[in-house]
Amino acid sequence: MHTVYSAEHRLRDPRTELHGGELVAPFECPARAEMVLEHVKQCALGPVLSPQTHSLDQILRIHDQRYIQFLQTCWNDWQAAGYAGEAIPYIWPLQDAGEFRSEDIQARLGYFALASDTAVSDGTWQAALASAQVALTAQNLVASGQESAFALCRPPGHHATTDRFGGYCFVNNAAIVAQAFLDQGASRVAILDVDFHHGNGTQSIFYGRSDVMVLSLHGDPRVAFPYFTGYADETGSGDGEGFTANYPLPRNTEFDQWDDALTTALRRIAAYAPDALVISLGVDTFINDPISFFRLQSEHFTRYGARLATAKLPTVFLMEGGYATEELGLNTTNVLRGFEGG
Amino acid sequence: MHTVYSAEHRLRDPRTELHGGELVAPFECPARAEMVLEHVKQCALGPVLSPQTHSLDQILRIHDQRYIQFLQTCWNDWQAAGYAGEAIPYIWPLQDAGEFRSEDIQARLGYFALASDTAVSDGTWQAALASAQVALTAQNLVASGQESAFALCRPPGHHATTDRFGGYCFVNNAAIVAQAFLDQGASRVAILDVDFHHGNGTQSIFYGRSDVMVLSLHGDPRVAFPYFTGYADETGSGDGEGFTANYPLPRNTEFDQWDDALTTALRRIAAYAPDALVISLGVDTFINDPISFFRLQSEHFTRYGARLATAKLPTVFLMEGGYATEELGLNTTNVLRGFEGG
Repeated sequence: MHTVYSAEHRLRDPRTELHGGELVAPFECPARAEMVLEHVKQCALGPVLSPQTHSLDQILRIHDQRYIQFLQTCWNDWQAAGYAGEAIPYIWPLQDAGEFRSEDIQARLGYFALASDTAVSDGTWQAALASAQVALTAQNLVASGQESAFALCRPPGHHATTDRFGGYCFVNNAAIVAQAFLDQGASRVAILDVDFHHGNGTQSIFYGRSDVMVLSLHGDPRVAFPYFTGYADETGSGDGEGFTANYPLPRNTEFDQWDDALTTALRRIAAYAPDALVISLGVDTFINDPISFFRLQSEHFTRYGARLATAKLPTVFLMEGGYATEELGLNTTNVLRGFEGG
Repeated sequence: MHTVYSAEHRLRDPRTELHGGELVAPFECPARAEMVLEHVKQCALGPVLSPQTHSLDQILRIHDQRYIQFLQTCWNDWQAAGYAGEAIPYIWPLQDAGEFRSEDIQARLGYFALASDTAVSDGTWQAALASAQVALTAQNLVASGQESAFALCRPPGHHATTDRFGGYCFVNNAAIVAQAFLDQGASRVAILDVDFHHGNGTQSIFYGRSDVMVLSLHGDPRVAFPYFTGYADETGSGDGEGFTANYPLPRNTEFDQWDDALTTALRRIAAYAPDALVISLGVDTFINDPISFFRLQSEHFTRYGARLATAKLPTVFLMEGGYATEELGLNTTNVLRGFEGG
């Protein structure tokens, strides 16, 4: 399997994350992607390619132009305002807030965020753009005939909505890849999100559409980030009714229970008969993940990788979360090697 | 003029405020109320009374029961969850988030907050409750025939909505006092908010009602907290249409310009002919205030205090903001003495 990687992810290296009422060193850090790359090389997964440059238009198929402009200018505007810390939203519009009236950087942070865990820092936009280029390059490989490809994206993307960042995510790589398949002629694409956290951004982007099915296995939002979405009765709306599927799972979920949900999701995908499959690959389902609560062991990643291959679909893997950095490379490549051997 | 004060405000003594991407020592601190009390005594404004105990029902006339329960339990629940810092919201529902489904303390923080500047800390509910008792006791004095009274409230209240905290505010003292006047037989009450920041909570509580007119002079929300409300074209809705008035003013506003807006507001109040006047008294309009941008000098507070007396209405003053602690007592008592001499 080919891997696509860009060293520009390192430009995203914030100092602060709001976590439990404190500013801590971010769980989502450059060492994560480096660890995965090291294991990709160690296990000889296949060639490692640099991303090609794709037009911003492909990102704007998913994200609002005004939001992208915000990401491009946020750090400079924040610095120009003279703040000492990184750019963390501290007020947001209420549900009845109406139209967009203030251009103050504090107001724009509030408009364009869904969480205050994630700081915008120097280099964030460049890294997020490179991450999307990595994703689109992997999509191109699969669209050109490769059975699968691995986009070693960082920062991750699945929490980003059309116009909101948060949960370490800025640009929704999975959504952009799915849209690219459609724009190249696919009729249907499935996105399967196996990250520990509900892919709330991806869900919201496609909630009213039937051409992308979004399925997510994740920690029960009653007790896990992002709390407000990811419930089993969220199934889509309008044309999208029936094309969203959520599998919330409780604390201490073991692999067998998780795998049962995966089986159900794969059946849904088979019935949908998509032209391509996009995997939002978070490995924070791992038992030692510091901010999650499932109990998968390293060998389970190999097993479910093999199971993903049974879908027999052109498949793009996109790196999402996973914060047990030491084991991150092993668990990620286990999925990919399992897929190739499956 | 009688002052009502409770030492229980000291129970609200958080360590952290999210400001400019950093956790800093809160601007809204116990020394503020102590400084005002000291000046009240120094200038012999009048007797200083302790608050009487009023029923929680008076608070529940304004605030949702579920929100009050949240304030009562938040700190314990947060501690039970094992977080190291103070309780600061880090994710909030989007506009399409729908119903209230997670009881996790992180979810409730997000539901019940409008900003992440303000941490819930040990003692916060007790202090907020005492602040409301102080306000209601001052209201009683005026309802019982005193021409005016000063509620030395802390924490302040004007940013709190029926079900959201933020901007240092938890319980909306001005709204509770206005409602108390109505419940005792008043037909109309005016709330005049002279704090530097738009009284977004107070506005939202009465936006659809004609029995309370809400007028606010404040820093232009295009460039000042709370950013999303406080624009001149927000005039109320439904039955409340025409009973909200906002006077946003630009950076470096001098007293004369501010005073012109006050004159306009007082004319509106005179035409409304309320039975009582509630003043949300923030003195962060002061030139040296660390987080505001008007240019009032200490003597101007005396002048506008005298001008407020020209309304010739039973008047309850409620302490709101003001963060230049050294001058806070002088500026506050200048308003009150100006009123008495006016």
